[in-house]
Amino acid sequence: GGDAGQWRVVSQSAWIGEGLPAVPFIRIDDQTDNQMGPPRWTLRGFTSNLRYSTRSERSLLDRRSEGLHRSHATCAALIPITKSPQWWAMAQDERRAIYARSEHMAIGADYLPAIARRLHHSRDLGEPFDFLTWFEYPPEASTAFEALVARLRSTEEWDHVIREIDIRLVRC
Amino acid sequence: GGDAGQWRVVSQSAWIGEGLPAVPFIRIDDQTDNQMGPPRWTLRGFTSNLRYSTRSERSLLDRRSEGLHRSHATCAALIPITKSPQWWAMAQDERRAIYARSEHMAIGADYLPAIARRLHHSRDLGEPFDFLTWFEYPPEASTAFEALVARLRSTEEWDHVIREIDIRLVRC
Repeated sequence: GGDAGQWRVVSQSAWIGEGLPAVPFIRIDDQTDNQMGPPRWTLRGFTSNLRYSTRSERSLLDRRSEGLHRSHATCAALIPITKSPQWWAMAQDERRAIYARSEHMAIGADYLPAIARRLHHSRDLGEPFDFLTWFEYPPEASTAFEALVARLRSTEEWDHVIREIDIRLVRC
Repeated sequence: GGDAGQWRVVSQSAWIGEGLPAVPFIRIDDQTDNQMGPPRWTLRGFTSNLRYSTRSERSLLDRRSEGLHRSHATCAALIPITKSPQWWAMAQDERRAIYARSEHMAIGADYLPAIARRLHHSRDLGEPFDFLTWFEYPPEASTAFEALVARLRSTEEWDHVIREIDIRLVRC
């Protein structure tokens, strides 16, 4: 987050817990060092193997997905999330059960292919957020996007979210 | 791996795939930078939340475990492992099924509390190994340790291991 980037910030709000300093642009880099001047803040994450979804769930998502970087998907959202220590102390089956009851996968699938999504993991890097969730969608899917986040936030899984920032963007 | 460290190497072998340059000592640091001169090679990893084990499995392990750093546990093994791209392309339920059929958890539990174990994740850091597995045990458990690794290596899960280095150590 800083004074330049591929995405312009149209709104930035602390949904749960402490916010981040307001910035006008988000720049996405594969490297943390770059030539464009220091950012106001930096969030790091990595994509990884599937942690919860089953083969049948993943196959459904893959069939419907179009991926990121579509030229008409000029809107984006960056929603960094931190879950509670109690969440992370659970065993795999306990977390999976909440994920399944919350229909996390099914909710996301309902908005494919319009709303593309990519999950970045941060917790294992010692970052302040556990996940950097990223969404890309065309302007006409903006109302659908509001419905998607509202449904996710109403789930049992979200009871375990202790920090959440909601940053909405348009491509420059 | 280098010329100094808390653990002296007593053997180092490439079990599957390419080896690592031989070193006389292993030093374990929380930081990669240090004052003790450059290592010959460095492997990085992080501990994380449970990825496969269920609450009941974890409770069994916790009841039997004594943890690392016991003064009488003067023997150790560092076994870096890489799994195949096919393994990582599987969904969570597919990997969990192999883990369960391989009785990975039960095999480890059979040797508790004598053989303590800690798993470090490396793949998400872009490291050459996916896992750095670490074991500590007293000299009298050496035969049991050979049985433990032999049993793990005979499992279906190990069919997906494409690189494995076996480094045995004694505390300095």
